[in-house]
Amino acid sequence: MAKTNPGRFFEDYSVGQIIDHAVPRTVSVGERALYHALYPARHALYSSDAFAQACGLPGSPMDDLAAFHVVFGKSVPDISLNAVANLGYAEGRWLLPVNPGDTLRSTSEVIGLKQNSSGKTGVVYVRTRGLNQRDETVMEFVRWVMVRKRDVEAPAPETVVPDLKPALSVADLTLPEGLTFQGYDTTLAGEPHRWGDYDIGEVIDHVDGVTIEEAEHMMATRLWQNTAKVHFDATHREDGKRLIYGGHVISMARALSFNGLANAQMIVGLNGGAHANPCFSGDTVRAWSEVLDKAETSDPSVGAIRLRLVAHKGAQAGALRGADGKYSTDVLLDLDYWAIMPT
Amino acid sequence: MAKTNPGRFFEDYSVGQIIDHAVPRTVSVGERALYHALYPARHALYSSDAFAQACGLPGSPMDDLAAFHVVFGKSVPDISLNAVANLGYAEGRWLLPVNPGDTLRSTSEVIGLKQNSSGKTGVVYVRTRGLNQRDETVMEFVRWVMVRKRDVEAPAPETVVPDLKPALSVADLTLPEGLTFQGYDTTLAGEPHRWGDYDIGEVIDHVDGVTIEEAEHMMATRLWQNTAKVHFDATHREDGKRLIYGGHVISMARALSFNGLANAQMIVGLNGGAHANPCFSGDTVRAWSEVLDKAETSDPSVGAIRLRLVAHKGAQAGALRGADGKYSTDVLLDLDYWAIMPT
Amino acid sequence: MAKTNPGRFFEDYSVGQIIDHAVPRTVSVGERALYHALYPARHALYSSDAFAQACGLPGSPMDDLAAFHVVFGKSVPDISLNAVANLGYAEGRWLLPVNPGDTLRSTSEVIGLKQNSSGKTGVVYVRTRGLNQRDETVMEFVRWVMVRKRDVEAPAPETVVPDLKPALSVADLTLPEGLTFQGYDTTLAGEPHRWGDYDIGEVIDHVDGVTIEEAEHMMATRLWQNTAKVHFDATHREDGKRLIYGGHVISMARALSFNGLANAQMIVGLNGGAHANPCFSGDTVRAWSEVLDKAETSDPSVGAIRLRLVAHKGAQAGALRGADGKYSTDVLLDLDYWAIMPT
Repeated sequence: MAKTNPGRFFEDYSVGQIIDHAVPRTVSVGERALYHALYPARHALYSSDAFAQACGLPGSPMDDLAAFHVVFGKSVPDISLNAVANLGYAEGRWLLPVNPGDTLRSTSEVIGLKQNSSGKTGVVYVRTRGLNQRDETVMEFVRWVMVRKRDVEAPAPETVVPDLKPALSVADLTLPEGLTFQGYDTTLAGEPHRWGDYDIGEVIDHVDGVTIEEAEHMMATRLWQNTAKVHFDATHREDGKRLIYGGHVISMARALSFNGLANAQMIVGLNGGAHANPCFSGDTVRAWSEVLDKAETSDPSVGAIRLRLVAHKGAQAGALRGADGKYSTDVLLDLDYWAIMPT
Repeated sequence: MAKTNPGRFFEDYSVGQIIDHAVPRTVSVGERALYHALYPARHALYSSDAFAQACGLPGSPMDDLAAFHVVFGKSVPDISLNAVANLGYAEGRWLLPVNPGDTLRSTSEVIGLKQNSSGKTGVVYVRTRGLNQRDETVMEFVRWVMVRKRDVEAPAPETVVPDLKPALSVADLTLPEGLTFQGYDTTLAGEPHRWGDYDIGEVIDHVDGVTIEEAEHMMATRLWQNTAKVHFDATHREDGKRLIYGGHVISMARALSFNGLANAQMIVGLNGGAHANPCFSGDTVRAWSEVLDKAETSDPSVGAIRLRLVAHKGAQAGALRGADGKYSTDVLLDLDYWAIMPT
Repeated sequence: MAKTNPGRFFEDYSVGQIIDHAVPRTVSVGERALYHALYPARHALYSSDAFAQACGLPGSPMDDLAAFHVVFGKSVPDISLNAVANLGYAEGRWLLPVNPGDTLRSTSEVIGLKQNSSGKTGVVYVRTRGLNQRDETVMEFVRWVMVRKRDVEAPAPETVVPDLKPALSVADLTLPEGLTFQGYDTTLAGEPHRWGDYDIGEVIDHVDGVTIEEAEHMMATRLWQNTAKVHFDATHREDGKRLIYGGHVISMARALSFNGLANAQMIVGLNGGAHANPCFSGDTVRAWSEVLDKAETSDPSVGAIRLRLVAHKGAQAGALRGADGKYSTDVLLDLDYWAIMPT
């Protein structure tokens, strides 16, 4: 009997199936330090225990996207080892801060299946949840991937396409217990611009760029125990290139967005996202953001802002698609998320 | 008087000599996070405090090989600074888990000396021990290295070749106090295969490969305070290449072996090892394992498995030597160790 | 209104101005592990809690230069974003150890201004202080930078050049409370040479070299939240090179100086420093030191030693300047500091 994991194929999934993912992970200040070494992350709430305590939290939690990467990474061996493409995200919600010392595991529920017309692949929709050592759900998100069939002759399952929200509403978002932005210090946070200073439709060019290195993207990806071959093995693709894990681009772009969005402290919702083009070592990643929406929350000191975050390698701020409606070739990422800011 | 350390030469060693190595080191969750960023390490016992606690330990200890690298690294300035070759290992035993916050130091005893027929070099055998802040021995191993003579005219010492075990027996192995695999969760661990599922002689191809980067091997090697020039200084060799620390290859191969040996949780014994060929940046490291032996332990929930771990850059699983009996040029490492698994 | 930070220009500074820098940072054993992965740091006081406790400290503090980099990094967006050159350092003093868990922030006072004769740039002198979560000053230093004017027509400010000490005297230095080198263990520290073994004028070649990698210098620089473009963006300079943060060279050289100065445990004063030439990836950094001065301290077990630390890429030990009085092109750094050693 073969001992290694061949991954699941399309016909191995069924709607309603629950898959508990392997290898729980205790995260610590070590993971936090590495996150800050790998990305130019400067949001004060994730940098300083003192700042986080002034915002009503017990200490600085793990970066929102670090929690996402750990939860996501655990699902890779079961969900996307044989994936042809990572098609989309929806309904991502951060429900509880992850603190140093917490142990995370993940579990996924298959919520949709649709065989492609070619008969060779199909789309699998899963809702993945991250749980801590107290079995509390710390975050959840839906993603869908195109997966190869093992046997093209296998019968197609009944098509089930889940009804997903195009975007979360503010009522879907959860603020961390105790969090307040009363007495928020914009000098320490790095910029004076509060929630009220941003207009819907406003585009912000984040100016800075970072050139991607092989060692860095591999360290980042391993840190989340995401071991998909294509990120690590230079012999895997014919062109000898290692594909950068899409989450590396997400974290890089989010960190770059500090310059203009320093007060968008926490990501609390993920509405959607597309990895528009592959990213490789040597690419210089830049970012721009567009304000898509704003909403008040239950706490008058906290405003919610919906942002499009675009990572690119040389586009004009605001430019996204060509005349044909397709993403421009220099666009890497188009992410739609909710963050919270001081009002 | 020269202030810098020229290292010891062959005539500086005498049988029975005790050498206390410098620079004690406190290891922490920071070192653990880096270990997991540098290697695709996923064995659950070293990843999750909750999993380790379910196995009867107070928390997740430092990775077995991280402890080895720290203890080994301390010995380099005294043992192998002028070494021509690292010839072998034997009788390596992990005696106590190393926990975050522990401080390690090492000491070596010279247990053998043999001048080579050329008169220019000799073989030094040492037993190196790692101790924690309570002066408890956490691990020990024998290694032997070929060292240059300072003065080729210096007289040869009496030849003493230690009587080393070709392999440890299960009675030589120590299980961590309190450890049990009763109630072991194979879903969380990542594979269903238990000790009883492995057959002596079975060969497992670990499938995945990782391409080596300069920045990564240097960070790893520095982390263990192993500062041998040849790993860091591109001007040191005529070909401008930096030689990868052999321990980097060991850790990479062990981490890759998760895929097929996810339940071989802890290394408890090192029977022997050879760095068959040098490894350089750009090489893609792969691994296969062969089950050499199996044994019951004093705890019925814990089985011992003796494994050959071979790191290579493109060999067939199971292939090791050419018709001439020498290691194939694409074999990097041939390691023989005992691990423990749930029965 | 533009949301991103354009940085300050020469005419934005006035003598007496206090600038509180953004993004406080909690440092941890994670940052310590990374420091030891990025530099071959082996000074025992910063490596081992047990060794530090034997020297009277509660545990091993963060490396002296790590504290400096954090405090310095915070000042970059306000002081040197539009700097043409980092001209000098003076009166740097380490006042309190920084321990894992401490949160650092920085503040600068403008203490001098001098417009250059070109009218296009000016020199800004600041005294920067790092404070912990108890508002205690942990370190301070003066630096001066050449900054562009936004408007060359803007009137020149009154010239104020601060009166800076060419070097601190031993009376200016602060020893950590409780520190003693009574019972200091030179075997654990790695070298037998004590304070009395060094002579003024003595030059020590530190022998080892480290070849610089892009991934490593970027990780180091990000870790200190120093986000100056020129270190990260390969498209920023016409030659496609990323300039290495000068602090990376300082830390590399200091770590290399272990070999010959293993007992120069803590840096307590920075007298001055010049980044003589730019450093780029691929350079192999070496170092030599010269003993400039020695002094007794208030504690008879602790001696102060004033050292010139020179980082270079292939110079002779002791060689610094050409016949024209300028730094040789292979000299990278000329740093003048006080350290403490066991007598």
